[in-house]
Parts: sequence; C-alpha cells; structure tokens
Amino acid sequence: MKFGIVFFPTVGPSDKSAEVYFDEALRLVDLAEELGFEHVKIVEHYFFSYGGYSPDPVTFLAAAAGRTRRVRLGTSATIPAFQHPVKLAGKLAMLDNISHGRLDAAFGRAFLPDEFKAFGIRMDESRDRFVEGVDAIKRLWTEEDVVFEGAFHRFGPVTLLPRPVQQPHPPVFVTTARSAESCAEAGRAGHHLQTVPNVMSTEELQSRLAVYRAEWAASGRSPGTEQIHFSYPCVVAEDGQEARRKGRVDDDRNSAAIRDAVASWGTTRSEAYPGYEKLVEATKTSHFESKMDQKKLLIGSPDQVRAQLEQISQWFGDDITISLGVHSGHLSYEDAAATMRLMAEQVLPKLNGGRG
Amino acid sequence: MKFGIVFFPTVGPSDKSAEVYFDEALRLVDLAEELGFEHVKIVEHYFFSYGGYSPDPVTFLAAAAGRTRRVRLGTSATIPAFQHPVKLAGKLAMLDNISHGRLDAAFGRAFLPDEFKAFGIRMDESRDRFVEGVDAIKRLWTEEDVVFEGAFHRFGPVTLLPRPVQQPHPPVFVTTARSAESCAEAGRAGHHLQTVPNVMSTEELQSRLAVYRAEWAASGRSPGTEQIHFSYPCVVAEDGQEARRKGRVDDDRNSAAIRDAVASWGTTRSEAYPGYEKLVEATKTSHFESKMDQKKLLIGSPDQVRAQLEQISQWFGDDITISLGVHSGHLSYEDAAATMRLMAEQVLPKLNGGRG
Repeated sequence: MKFGIVFFPTVGPSDKSAEVYFDEALRLVDLAEELGFEHVKIVEHYFFSYGGYSPDPVTFLAAAAGRTRRVRLGTSATIPAFQHPVKLAGKLAMLDNISHGRLDAAFGRAFLPDEFKAFGIRMDESRDRFVEGVDAIKRLWTEEDVVFEGAFHRFGPVTLLPRPVQQPHPPVFVTTARSAESCAEAGRAGHHLQTVPNVMSTEELQSRLAVYRAEWAASGRSPGTEQIHFSYPCVVAEDGQEARRKGRVDDDRNSAAIRDAVASWGTTRSEAYPGYEKLVEATKTSHFESKMDQKKLLIGSPDQVRAQLEQISQWFGDDITISLGVHSGHLSYEDAAATMRLMAEQVLPKLNGGRG
Repeated sequence: MKFGIVFFPTVGPSDKSAEVYFDEALRLVDLAEELGFEHVKIVEHYFFSYGGYSPDPVTFLAAAAGRTRRVRLGTSATIPAFQHPVKLAGKLAMLDNISHGRLDAAFGRAFLPDEFKAFGIRMDESRDRFVEGVDAIKRLWTEEDVVFEGAFHRFGPVTLLPRPVQQPHPPVFVTTARSAESCAEAGRAGHHLQTVPNVMSTEELQSRLAVYRAEWAASGRSPGTEQIHFSYPCVVAEDGQEARRKGRVDDDRNSAAIRDAVASWGTTRSEAYPGYEKLVEATKTSHFESKMDQKKLLIGSPDQVRAQLEQISQWFGDDITISLGVHSGHLSYEDAAATMRLMAEQVLPKLNGGRG
C-alpha cells in the first residue's frame, strides 16, 4: 500500500481563519515531502465549512508545487461542470509543468445542490457534463487543433498551451461516491479510481472494486496498472485513548459540516442522484462508535491503526493507496504533524510484517 | 517609483518548453524576493505563444506564494469574462490567504478574438461582462449572503469562502490598453490602473492619466492613494551594445508573437473594440529602433536605463510603479537574472540622484 495526505478542511471563519488553515496545511505539505508520503491532495467545495475553504484545488496544489520537489499533487477532485474545459485543462497543464510532472488529475460530478445552483447548472446534467468535460480535457491535453462539438461546449480548432509534461497526459482519476455504474465506466475508460469508504459498506465497496477491476482488464489494460485511492480520516497518538478522544472531536465536527452542506437535499430531488434525498437522514444517524466498529476511521494508537490497515488490505487488496485526512482544521497543527510522524515512523514500516 | 517583475512569456513549445520556462520564472521570483522588488505578476492568455503558457495566472502566482514571504503577487490581468465570478473570486481569495495578504487583483476585458471564440463569449459583450464580473467579485469578497442579479450571472444568497485576508478587499486594478473612457471609469470606481505604455504615444498616455487622476480625486478619494502600474520590456547589461543586441532579439520575437495572436483581427470587427482592426497593421510596422527612440523599451546599460527612467518619471510622475518584463523566454535565465541584478544594484539606487 502507498500513503498520502488529503486536505479536507471542515472549518469556517468562526473556527480557524483560512489564513491560519493554509499556513498549517502548507507546513504539513513540507512534512509530507520530508517523511516520504506519496501525495498531497485537496478537495473542491464552496460556501460551507464542508470543504468551502478550497473552491479551487489547483491554487493550493500550485502553492505546494512551489515548495516541494518529490510529492505528487492531486485534485480530490476538481469539478468539470463548474468551469470551461479550456480553463480547467489549461491550469492543470500549468500545474503539471510547474511541478515537473507531479499532477494526478481526479475529476468529480459534485453532489451539493447549493453548488450547482450558484453556478447556474442543472444537477440532472451533471453526469453528461462530467463525461463531456473529462473528454474535452483529455483531447485538449493530447491533440492539436482540437475541434470540440459537445452538448455544453463547442470550440476549435484550438491547440492548448501549455502542453502537459506527463505523456500521453497526467493520470486521470474518477472520484465516485456511491455509483456502481460510475465504477464500471471508469474501468472501461481506463481511468483510475478515487473513493471514500465512509459512505458504503465493506461488501458494497468490494463489489464495486471487483466490477472496476474486471472492466479495466476486459478493456485490454494490464491488471494491476489501475490505481485505487481511498480516503480515511486519520488521528494517531501514542496513547490510543488520546487518539480516540481527539478523533471523536474531529469526527463530530466533520459530521456537523456535512450535515449543513447536505441540508438542501432535504428539499431537492434529482433523477441523476437516486437516493441522495436520504443523505440528510444518513448524516443524522452517523455515530462515531459505529464508524469505529466498521473500521471507517483510522483512529487509535500506532498498533491499533496498523491492525486496521492490515484488515483493509485484506478486504480490498494490498495494491490500494490510502489518502490520510489528517487535518480538517479542528485539531491543532501539532496533532496533525504527530499523526503523520507516527504513521511514517511507527505504522507503515511494520505494516504486513514490514512488507509495506 | 517602485519596481516589480512581470512575466509575459512569448515562447511556444518549439522555442522553450513550459516546464523549463516556469522553472526559470520561479527562480526569478526567488531573485525578485531576494533583491527587494515590490511585486511579481503574470498575464492571462491562451493558445498562442503570446502569453499562452499562462492561461491561469493564479496557478503561477500560487506557486510563487508557496516559496516567498514578502513580494506582492499580481494578476496582469485576469479576465472575468472567461470564468464564473464565484470561481474567480474564490481562487483569488485562496491566493490572498495562502500569501498572507499579498494579492493585487488586476482585471481585464481581453482583446483577442480567438480567446473569446473558444469560450463562446461575444466580444461585443466584453465591457458589460467585465463590469459585471468585477462588481460580482467585489461583492462576494465584502458581503455575506450575496444575491447577485446580473445580465450574465445570477446566484445567491451565497457567502463566499474563504474570506480574503486584505480588508475591505485585495487592491483592485483595471488593466486597460487604449480606452480613455476605461481610465475615467477606473478612477470613478476607485480602481487602481495598470497599462502598457507601448501601445500609445506619450501625450495620449499623459492625457489618460490626467483624466484618471482627476476622476479619482473628484470621487472623494485622497489624491496620491491611487496606484498606477506600467509594464516595460527590460534588458540591461553592463555593455549597452550587448543589451541592445539582446533586446532586439527579444523585441523581434515579442512582435512576432503578437502578430500571430492578433491575426484574426484582420477579419474581425467589433463595435466594442473601435480601431482594433488596425492592430494587424500596427504590429507589422512596429520597429525596434522607433520604439527605442520613443522610450518604449527599457533596454541599455545601467546608465542609459536610469536616464530613461528619469525621463519617464518626468512625463508621468514619480509615484508610478514599473513592472519589468525581464523574461519573455527568448533570452536565457542568466540574461534575465543579470537584468534584475543590474536594475537592483546599479540603476534603482542612483535613480533621481539616489532619491528613488
């Protein structure tokens, strides 16, 4: 397994200013670089404490690129529906150049009604916009004199500048929450996969990965070349009780943030998002203890977290990559740094009997 | 006078890869920080060697923010017409936070027909889109629960995150090329001014500045608090002949780049851009020697450039700020660094008898 860091701020101005949050996050990027983590990522969200400090992941990743040389830089994800493909392809290509080829480009559909409303985009179109956007971006990256005739955007002939560094193009990931069909499509299209185990049962996730891997191989790609990234909230301390106490604070605040962000699902229905109206209920009945029991949170002492990671690798395979959500912003910089150091120094070296 | 650095790449893949260009540019950012230059800026353009390596100035400036602590970071400019105001306001606010309040936000209308075509935006609307976009961004930065009812965008109530660091908001500049009316509007609106002396006569520019300063003061603002930024291409060497030889190469390549970029003005007419159809002719008859005679290029030995800057300060006032275009990409990193060192060490300390 490989390990990286994902930033998913759930703080707002009354908790911690964005200036302080980003200062801490960039110091944690430096630490990720130093400790050998494989990647740093950040989300794209708006308006709510649920990720809203990061409306443009490329901006944060470019700041990270400017001060690092090794760690990979990932969107987690960025949303094609909310910007023109020429703009998004162009800035991702700039980031790939500035970072000397360290971009992992993950794209998502988005799922918060208030975000779609602000951009004047119908949620029912989100899948079509996602597919068209990713297609346009890949063509702009790989072809010259692109003439694009989509349902939402038409342009060309144009040749995008700058050309990306990674050839034929930066790795493309699809970030998906629940949809089995999205997993199958991602495999067929040769896209890597990013997901959050939090939102489904172990069995559901296993069956989605089986579908994804089968479609990947069936479309002629070498099994094992696909990348699967999971995100987990993560709080580690020498003392497991201390980790649990801090992890509970963190989880409570994360849960409150998502409850606010999904509130408008209480009055929203979209055929493109079957079952999402139940999100509001689900966030109300989400409890720390049951998430711990289901191993959805990487919280505990180094030994406890190591045992849990070994369980995860048995469930999903030891070729998956884990993104650690170490800093939602509610705990201190020192807490997040301690989690990262303990992971790098005490958990990962001993994993699977020291075989990683 | 204050001095900064503006990056306006005019190289394409056959000249210098974007990976090398940005590597050099970020090393020059470090040098600007070290030598005490006031700002670094970068343009927004697409598709052509004329600025096309930088379709998203915020991406580059964020990389610069990640590795500096002092130097200010400016768009030069960014184009509201090409992205949703929520997106642009959000990423500029992220940059203001990441840089601890070092953003100067300059906005422009854009003027290249091929850029508008790619984004599916009518050039005739560009002034209205510019005015609406800047208004929306300032409201998103300064108000909560913004309800925006524009001709092009409607949204709200939304509260932008993150909130910008600089209060009431980051300095707003208008970047204008030729329009006297734009200068008057900028003064009335309390916007700072960015322009390129290259595209008009000294007398025309003087009269525009007079209008701008008069409108600034007439609208109740303290005279002298307005900021006026000029960009000049700049090549300095100990030996004035060497500077001139290199400067001619640079100017020839810059001229070729703009000729390509404006070619479609040969077949474009827009009432919103009176006289722009003559741009093609103007770029054909633009000669290095006449630009040197008119003091449009800061090229020469330290003493020659110092004399020229003293002339510029007599023409336009010694409270203007100069952005030095030291690296279009056609000369080497070492040439650009030498220009910056000579400016910082031999030109600026002696300017106006050492009074700066």
